[in-house]
Amino acid sequence: MKANDRVFVVDLSERAFLAEITEVLEDQVVLRFLSWQESETELPIRIAIASGLPKGDKLDFIVQKGTELGAVAFYPFKAERSVTKWEPKKTAKKIERLERIAKEAAEQSHRTHIPKIEFASDLGKLLTLMEAFDYVVCAYEESSRAGEKNVLATVFEEIPHGASLLVIFGPEGGLSETEVEQFGKKDVHFAGLGPRILRTETAPLYLLAAASYHFELADSFFNE
Amino acid sequence: MKANDRVFVVDLSERAFLAEITEVLEDQVVLRFLSWQESETELPIRIAIASGLPKGDKLDFIVQKGTELGAVAFYPFKAERSVTKWEPKKTAKKIERLERIAKEAAEQSHRTHIPKIEFASDLGKLLTLMEAFDYVVCAYEESSRAGEKNVLATVFEEIPHGASLLVIFGPEGGLSETEVEQFGKKDVHFAGLGPRILRTETAPLYLLAAASYHFELADSFFNE
Repeated sequence: MKANDRVFVVDLSERAFLAEITEVLEDQVVLRFLSWQESETELPIRIAIASGLPKGDKLDFIVQKGTELGAVAFYPFKAERSVTKWEPKKTAKKIERLERIAKEAAEQSHRTHIPKIEFASDLGKLLTLMEAFDYVVCAYEESSRAGEKNVLATVFEEIPHGASLLVIFGPEGGLSETEVEQFGKKDVHFAGLGPRILRTETAPLYLLAAASYHFELADSFFNE
Repeated sequence: MKANDRVFVVDLSERAFLAEITEVLEDQVVLRFLSWQESETELPIRIAIASGLPKGDKLDFIVQKGTELGAVAFYPFKAERSVTKWEPKKTAKKIERLERIAKEAAEQSHRTHIPKIEFASDLGKLLTLMEAFDYVVCAYEESSRAGEKNVLATVFEEIPHGASLLVIFGPEGGLSETEVEQFGKKDVHFAGLGPRILRTETAPLYLLAAASYHFELADSFFNE
């Protein structure tokens, strides 16, 4: 970039503004403030995605597309049926990689918030992370199979703007009975995501798009 | 597969049933009918996706994930700002490849309908294809930028079950003025897909997930 180019800047308090480069020096760039960016690019509710460790590079995909679609955090967790393992020695590197993907996707989407990544190495850690959220939904294939189709819209209808929601997704093999039982002991809503079977990396994108549609596009229908 | 394995069969009229393999012969497999599959896995409205030819393997991605999310057809079209070109000689091969991807994704999702693929080699062909649809929506970035946020939900609210909807998406560089002008002459609804900038391959997935949420999960809220 060079003088006269325009840049989109996000400050530490997550306020965004437009600026123009006036000078590029050896170790600094001088900007001229143009205008505050008033358009709100963050979802009205804060949604975090907990994904049972999937195979291959699916987590990269979930973090990239999930960031584009507005997630505020990603918690990969070691699910009972996860085939992929994260060796403790390599965890820091893997997290760094996902952080980089989230940062780039946030910039490309002009988000003001860069999603946080945190690894839950066992079910206990995930249960502890859950405590921080106002609402928890578990996307449950068995619910979809059983034709469940009201929970998600009912929960969305109940969540006030500004509240936080954690959504849990199983790995390819689904969640185990133990996991479902443990979530059931907490105040977790088990929700189906429609009648088609979604892959483990597609389900979080469905959830985030549905939330955007509910809170950002169809809001007036729900609040009538 | 072998005797006693169970298979999911879809007949030519798109009715699905469960069967058991009783015998595997040299050139045929004998099945025993078990039960009709009553769960409906097709979206209540028929959605086709028209994508301005995107770069790289993004079309593979759109077809795979779009099939999982319920699209009934894909129309790649040569948009004015498409960087990728499809040489006439190679078009048939490219279509075959996408048909294979759609078929595999439909099987994996237990869909009863395999999406159709058709290439629109110029704007005129796309305009002709449009005629066959009850509704046409154009996902328009400028609408999103301008804060438009009611069109999609209003159109969804209006579309009756069983109707067909074509949704048009631009390539990476967006739709050209000419294209937008031509669509504007037809009865096309220009809709924003929320405040975050979505990549060209993410926007169709957003649209399909929003439609599933509207018609399959939150239906009772809209019909109150």
